[in-house]
Formats: sequence, C-alpha cells, structure tokens
Amino acid sequence: MSAEPLTVISLPETACVAAPRCAADLTEQRGVRRVSFVPKYGSETANVDVRYLWCGAPHAPTVIVQGGISADRDVCAGRDRATGWWQELVGQGAAIDLAECRVLSIDWLVPGDLGDDVASVSSEDQASALAALVDELGIGRVQAFVGSSYGAMTGLAFAAAHPDKLRSLVLLAGAHRPHPLSTAQRSVQRGIVRLGIESGRVDEALALARQLAMTTYRGSEEFSRRFAAGPELRDGRFHFPVEDYLEHAGRRFVERFDPSRFLALSESIDLHDISPERVSAPTTLVGFPSDRLVPLSDLCELQRRLGGTATLEVVDSPYGHDAFLKETVQLAPVLRHALNDCRGDR
Amino acid sequence: MSAEPLTVISLPETACVAAPRCAADLTEQRGVRRVSFVPKYGSETANVDVRYLWCGAPHAPTVIVQGGISADRDVCAGRDRATGWWQELVGQGAAIDLAECRVLSIDWLVPGDLGDDVASVSSEDQASALAALVDELGIGRVQAFVGSSYGAMTGLAFAAAHPDKLRSLVLLAGAHRPHPLSTAQRSVQRGIVRLGIESGRVDEALALARQLAMTTYRGSEEFSRRFAAGPELRDGRFHFPVEDYLEHAGRRFVERFDPSRFLALSESIDLHDISPERVSAPTTLVGFPSDRLVPLSDLCELQRRLGGTATLEVVDSPYGHDAFLKETVQLAPVLRHALNDCRGDR
Repeated sequence: MSAEPLTVISLPETACVAAPRCAADLTEQRGVRRVSFVPKYGSETANVDVRYLWCGAPHAPTVIVQGGISADRDVCAGRDRATGWWQELVGQGAAIDLAECRVLSIDWLVPGDLGDDVASVSSEDQASALAALVDELGIGRVQAFVGSSYGAMTGLAFAAAHPDKLRSLVLLAGAHRPHPLSTAQRSVQRGIVRLGIESGRVDEALALARQLAMTTYRGSEEFSRRFAAGPELRDGRFHFPVEDYLEHAGRRFVERFDPSRFLALSESIDLHDISPERVSAPTTLVGFPSDRLVPLSDLCELQRRLGGTATLEVVDSPYGHDAFLKETVQLAPVLRHALNDCRGDR
Repeated sequence: MSAEPLTVISLPETACVAAPRCAADLTEQRGVRRVSFVPKYGSETANVDVRYLWCGAPHAPTVIVQGGISADRDVCAGRDRATGWWQELVGQGAAIDLAECRVLSIDWLVPGDLGDDVASVSSEDQASALAALVDELGIGRVQAFVGSSYGAMTGLAFAAAHPDKLRSLVLLAGAHRPHPLSTAQRSVQRGIVRLGIESGRVDEALALARQLAMTTYRGSEEFSRRFAAGPELRDGRFHFPVEDYLEHAGRRFVERFDPSRFLALSESIDLHDISPERVSAPTTLVGFPSDRLVPLSDLCELQRRLGGTATLEVVDSPYGHDAFLKETVQLAPVLRHALNDCRGDR
C-alpha cells in the first residue's frame, strides 16, 4: 500500500552541531503513504495519501510532532532542507532529541485529500491519518504526541480515538475546543477570503486575512512595545508602523499558502470539539498567559476535565500564541521533562 | 454666521417619565452652525457646518457629551426622536440630569466637512469645532466634557487646546493615544473596506469590517458565555453561533453608516496623539478591565501623566469596550459624582 517517493537516508555527522550526545547515523524517511479511514464529514472510507517525515535514531521510540495550521511535516532540518519550523527544539541534542527519539510528522490533510464529497476536514481526520500511518510504518505505539495549536487539538483527537497508540500527550497552546472569540476572529478571516474569491481579489484578501490572524497571535504588550511610534504620510495616506509589519506578514503568507487550504484548516480549528474526559493518557499542558487566542482559562478547564493525570505548565512570555514558536529556551526543559519517559524506557 | 435649520423647542411634560426631579420646560436646539478654524491636516481656515444638539434646563451650565465614532449628536430622547444613544444616563433625573444641566453634542466631522484639500480629520478638529460652537452659542465655559471612546480622545484634545473653555473632564474608555494592537485591528478593518471599494463589493466589505470591530468591543468571557454552542450545517456550510451575531451586526451597520465616513473616523482614532501633560483640567477617568481595545494600563499611564488632578474609576464589567454603553447602572453614580461640581455651582 505504500506510495512513493519514499527516501530513507542517513544524515552526515556534520549535521550534528553542538549536540551533547551525538548519534552518528540518523534515519530519515520523507515520503507518502496511502491509508484508509472514514472521514468525520464523509460517508464512506477514503483512501488518503499522507505526506510524512519520520526521522531520528533508528529503532528509537517515535514521537509525533505537529504544529499550527501553517506548519508542515518539516519539523526539523535534514537532508535537502536547511531549516525546520521547530528546529530549535527538535534535533540531535535538542529537547526532542533525535539521537534518542524518532520524530513523525505529517502535512495537514485538506478536504480535497478526503474525496470529492467531503467539504470539511476535522482534527479527528488528521488523527485518523496519523493513527493509520503509525500502523503502516509498524510503530505500534508512539512514546508521545507533542502538538502545538491545531497540533494540540489533533493530539487530543488522537488520544481520544486511539488510546492504545500512545503513551503520553504534550499539548502546547491548544485545547479541547476553540474559544468563541477566536472563532469569531477566524470567521471574519474566512469571510475576507471568501469575499476575495468572489470578487477576483484572492491574493489581497488572503493577505488581509493573514494580517488579521497576526493581530491575534502576539501578546498585547508586545504590540505596544514594538509599534509605539507615530504614523508616516506616504503616497497620500498615513501609514502606521504596525501596518508595515502586518502588510509584510500578509505578503509572505500569500507566497506560501493557498486560500482553499487556509479556509479548510481555519474552519477545522473551529469545528474541533473533543470531550477531555475521553482522554486517559498522561498529559502535560503548556500555556502562555499572554495567549489571547487560546486563553489560559481554557487550558485550566482542560486540565480539570482530562480523564488521566494532567500537569499544566505556565510559561511567561510576551509572545502570546506565538510563544510556542518563540520561547524555545523556556520550552526546552519543559519538553525534556515531559518526554522523560521516552528516554527512561530505553 | 449661523446656518439653519435651528429649532428651539420646549419639551412637553409628558417627556418626563420616572424622573425624581422634573423641570417643566427644557429647551432643545437641534441645528447647524457654521464655525471657522484651521484643520490639523489642512493649510487654511475652513468654514465648517457643525450639526449639534443642545438641550436641557434653560440657563443651566452646559455639559458636552460625545460618544464613539458610530454615535451621533442624539445623546438623549427628545422631540422627534424616541431614543438617544446614551438615554439611560442623559435625561431628566438621570445621572447627567437635564433638569440641572444642558447637554451639548455634535455629529462627528469628516474630512469632506473641512474642505476639498483635507484628507484626514483629527480629534483636535472635532475639539476645534466644539470650542467654536461653545463661543458661537455664547456658553463661555462648559461645566464638563464627558467623552467616551473617540469622544474621550476629543475631550482630551479639547482640554489641551482650550483650557479656558471647560471646568472638568470625564473620560470613559479612551486615552491619549490608541493602543498599537487596536490600531492593527482597525488598520485591517480599513484594508477590508478599501478592498471592497476597489472591487465593487462595498456593502459586504463594510459589514465584514464591522464584524471585525465587534470582535474587539466585547469582553472575551462575554463571547465565551454567549456563544459556547456548536456549529450548524446550513446551505452547505457550517455556521457558528457567533457568526450569526457578527453577521447581524454587520448588516445593521451597513444600513446606517457609509464607508468613507467609517474610513475617516477609524483613521482619526489612530491619528490621535495628545500629551496628557498639556491637560490641566481636573479629570475623572473611567476604565473597564475587560476592555481589550483600550486597555486599563493605558488609562493608568494617562492618569499618571495628566497635568491636573486625575481620578481613575475602575468598573468591573463583562462587556469590554462596550461597557460604557452597557453598564449604565454602575456608571450612573460615577458620573453623578464626577459632575457634582456642575450641580454644586448653581
């Protein structure tokens, strides 16, 4: 059932920089596998091509790592790529130590992957794909599922539906349901993109939607500190310093994201709804007080309601929701501690 | 220099309902006066028609009342109108007691009022119009300027530039500068409206901009409490409860507001920048901890920096920025106390 391209490589030793414990050979599979499951909003079994990265120490326990909706499977640097979106935390000698674990990650599915009759994709579908992939790769049971933002939602869905396939959960800046204010903000983003599609101004609309998203990611004080200067009169209009930041972020997003993918994954966040009581795996929650998108109060509720043991680590940061990407120094010991079992078992 | 229509009426006694102290005759002027001043972003003196309401007890001291950018001069009920946007707080026997004071309010100016060469309107321009109107009506000095949101910004501008024209300031949910995060949110709103104008989808764009504004007005917990229910599948798409609320608010706004007015007044908020040190009038600040648009920390800074005595009243409310409209029961004693001088002087 496996589809190509599938590459199995050994990383050169030079990839191992400043790592306290350094494995000479890491394996890397970066490929596509076809798996089958019934999507939540579909009526029949779908055959789904899942694009994944599986890399780290051969025969080491596997840790699933998933990020936000704009992240992909390239969690860490490797052959053919100089960077990964969480490379400070995933690598040889890093908190998620590729010399000790093997990291598995997938590109998020969109409705088009699930069949012609499926209009929406759910966090459960992402979890189903990961669970099927775990079987397909012969992993059996992953040591941990480390999910951030939408990845945390998928982690909860995975733990609720496939309790036999994981030992522990680590969830950063994500909860059992979206906050209704965040749903409101994303709903307006989707409205902008739909208006852009209908009026033939897709790129500008997607850029504006991203600008709006950016206003929800960083902490309020971070905005205050960075953009305190007054406006500049340019091209007959006043420009505020924060506008330059937003416009740049909007343009960059348009270069790498397409509107239908954005609509589907943004909606998927808002459709997410998992009863915490269904989750029995030991869980470490990581929250940030300045995160306005996923308020700490929602993580407190999640902690109270989880079916298994649950620890809540509160990490102070000015970076709001983006803290899961920015606070690598603070997060490293938290992740090391949460993954201790992973290393202890070997 | 006065322009018509100017009406001077006496309210019938039946307009006085449930008022503990009831004046038989109130005067009401609802008219237009032409005044002259040099706009901040203009180069020469502009002759500006100012639409105003001046009503209350004849010969009583005048209190200026100004609201947010979507408010108008119709602060209270009166002849030819059953309601006013702050009618619970302005009326006979109300906290701003029309039996004891005379309330003056204007419709916000837009750049078109200031001349063909003026592209932006400032809070200072609104203050200049009010100051000229105070002269024109022979008021001399107002007892207080009670401003909320953009009205608070205008109050500061008035007190800084025309210190001889007021005794005291009462500022609700507004500060000496906009918060950069709020500027970011308004910038995206203006971007949506500009995209709508360029693509011929003005109404939908203005509605979306209003939807975004609504997400910034109410407190986070208010959203959480009201819109906790799951989505509904309608017309082939999932609808979230909060979307129905936003869409309704968007449609209503389009009926009563036009896009160029919105663009100008939204920008005017972001251009606002008054040094608090310039303001010597005794000031009462009123802030709401759940207000994300005008964070309490900005009112704390304003209080520290004001040139005269300054009191900060913190009113707990789930309504965020909208609390100045919603918390009438809590605000009544605060306003009565702040306006005590007004009554005491008579």
